[in-house]
Amino acid sequence: MKFTVNRAAFIKELNDVSRAIASRTTIPVLTGLKLVVDQDGITLTGSDSDISIETTLSIADEAAALNIEQPGSIVLPARFFIDIVKQLPAQAMTLEMTTGFQTKITSGSASFTINGLDANSYPNLPEIEATNSVTLSADTLREIISQTVIAVSNQESRPILTGVHFSLSENQFLAVATDSHRLAQRKVALEDTLAASADVIIPGKSLNELAKMLENVETVEMRIAENQVLFILGKTLFYSRLLEGNYPDTTRLIPKESDTTVTFNATELLSAINRASLLSHESRNNVVKLEIDPSGAKITGNSPDVGQVEEALNVKVQAGNELAISFNPDYMKDALRSFGNIDIEVSFTTALRPFTLIPVENGESFIQLITPVRTF
Amino acid sequence: MKFTVNRAAFIKELNDVSRAIASRTTIPVLTGLKLVVDQDGITLTGSDSDISIETTLSIADEAAALNIEQPGSIVLPARFFIDIVKQLPAQAMTLEMTTGFQTKITSGSASFTINGLDANSYPNLPEIEATNSVTLSADTLREIISQTVIAVSNQESRPILTGVHFSLSENQFLAVATDSHRLAQRKVALEDTLAASADVIIPGKSLNELAKMLENVETVEMRIAENQVLFILGKTLFYSRLLEGNYPDTTRLIPKESDTTVTFNATELLSAINRASLLSHESRNNVVKLEIDPSGAKITGNSPDVGQVEEALNVKVQAGNELAISFNPDYMKDALRSFGNIDIEVSFTTALRPFTLIPVENGESFIQLITPVRTF
Repeated sequence: MKFTVNRAAFIKELNDVSRAIASRTTIPVLTGLKLVVDQDGITLTGSDSDISIETTLSIADEAAALNIEQPGSIVLPARFFIDIVKQLPAQAMTLEMTTGFQTKITSGSASFTINGLDANSYPNLPEIEATNSVTLSADTLREIISQTVIAVSNQESRPILTGVHFSLSENQFLAVATDSHRLAQRKVALEDTLAASADVIIPGKSLNELAKMLENVETVEMRIAENQVLFILGKTLFYSRLLEGNYPDTTRLIPKESDTTVTFNATELLSAINRASLLSHESRNNVVKLEIDPSGAKITGNSPDVGQVEEALNVKVQAGNELAISFNPDYMKDALRSFGNIDIEVSFTTALRPFTLIPVENGESFIQLITPVRTF
Repeated sequence: MKFTVNRAAFIKELNDVSRAIASRTTIPVLTGLKLVVDQDGITLTGSDSDISIETTLSIADEAAALNIEQPGSIVLPARFFIDIVKQLPAQAMTLEMTTGFQTKITSGSASFTINGLDANSYPNLPEIEATNSVTLSADTLREIISQTVIAVSNQESRPILTGVHFSLSENQFLAVATDSHRLAQRKVALEDTLAASADVIIPGKSLNELAKMLENVETVEMRIAENQVLFILGKTLFYSRLLEGNYPDTTRLIPKESDTTVTFNATELLSAINRASLLSHESRNNVVKLEIDPSGAKITGNSPDVGQVEEALNVKVQAGNELAISFNPDYMKDALRSFGNIDIEVSFTTALRPFTLIPVENGESFIQLITPVRTF
């Protein structure tokens, strides 16, 4: 194996693939980065066994200035190799497999020889056929992820809740996440259609990594298989394992009616909750209280050791009963951030029942639900 | 106590004072920030008992829009109070001591009440008279600090070495630091003169904090007392305790003669050392080797488990004997960074004796010394 490449172009691909590479893993070969060189270019692969990313640098890519002298394959220690490539002195670098799996990297007057591993010891990526696939706008997928992934559970006690539930039927994409204290649900009409409806649970961690890669992409093809999902972002393939099991039925959790509704600007409410949470974070109970009466709405916090906070809120529209309800301000902050700077309607039934936040416009498409905290 | 102030102007002073406030301390009152309000303005004080910072916001400062309704003093929980001030909604804020040491902070529609402490329980700052003082350019002091503090020891086994030794005589400022593996020494001619020569050891941590505050200042007055030093930066006072004991005599450590000298560009050499250290950091011994012979100079690293590195260096001038010498690349990186992008002369005697780095121009003013590592 021997090739010469433009370093900047190579680093771009290395950065993408390195997202999947864990620094610690039970499978030592996965701390490595696989390079496969053939007449068409270089294929780079990284994996932590949950996520795998594969990308290619083509000889047709002029910026890459790729010159392949001899095909071959190798696994190199990922972090160490990427650090070296980033710090090499010249624009171009040459990589050559010498004796055994030793690999020589040269650039300008610098020369490294590092120990690699047999590429045959690297696990194969799953094969996913194109039978059930759908194409989405990258921006839409990124929005769906950012609005739902905040509600996934961080606790492994109920592993199924660490994922986001994607249900795709003929024309609809429904994404739901809940950690049992809060829930986020986003609904999008599909322009493209799947061959068969699909129902999968994708780990939140996978979606967080995927979202970072969607920024410079226009469309994404999503292919669904038995226990894997593949997202195709141009020349980059992003694989994630799926969580196994049945996702709880969340439709019954969302209240159908309400006794009190208030409209706020989401950004203004977020600032007030941020302030109130400064106090609640200092106290033993991380709780703030929202009081709604005919004179308006206010947020309060009280902790004898630390102090008190009180703030009158700017209410846009208000209807229904008086109410005092307590909740975890951090859940509220996550929920409010997911709306951006728009008006939202917050709907309550009683002080002990979950309440919902929806956008004033297109209220059916997006809902955040928060369970209050009992303080008496 | 009651006053109204522009938040932005107040935050600037809070940020300065907060540098001295440790989040954990054995003296609980020192997690607080002391405010003293009189007819002239607000005096803010923070301290971790090693460093103390005091600054004032004057009623004459128009940007501060300070309106004092009632003088008084209080100690408030520093981190919590500063977070609150930063997140308040309006441009102005009002602070009022109510019952006991409770303090009410209002801004726009937000209102906080937090528990304070009696300002009389806060330790007094040392009194330092102006009898022995010298005025320096802030840029010069910042340079002296950044060039020497890199060589202080991080180990408490010899506490005296955790400081920088400042010797001020009639016209000369000499700063030296060493952790016994390396040494940094900077000499500056003084324009101002002290009443009496001074010899003090200032903790490296204090100097690091001081250096951050010197950026927007033109001149600094340094006042030296028995066991404290005071730096006056405009309206801000920076106190540091001094280290007690005798600093070792470092003059005999610096070799008078050399058998091999090589001139490099410091930035180019730094890049090469950075690359070589990638390999040494992966190995058990963090060592690289410099080889000098008539054909030039090269840097190499070798670790059977990890690999090898080799790089020919760009030598500007070279004289004297052949040499192969090994050293810790991290010491070399710290030393090289302190020169900036200039040409430096590196002088060696033998492979086991310390070597020195000096600027090609003004070589007497600045010296870095590094002890090699024995590899056989």
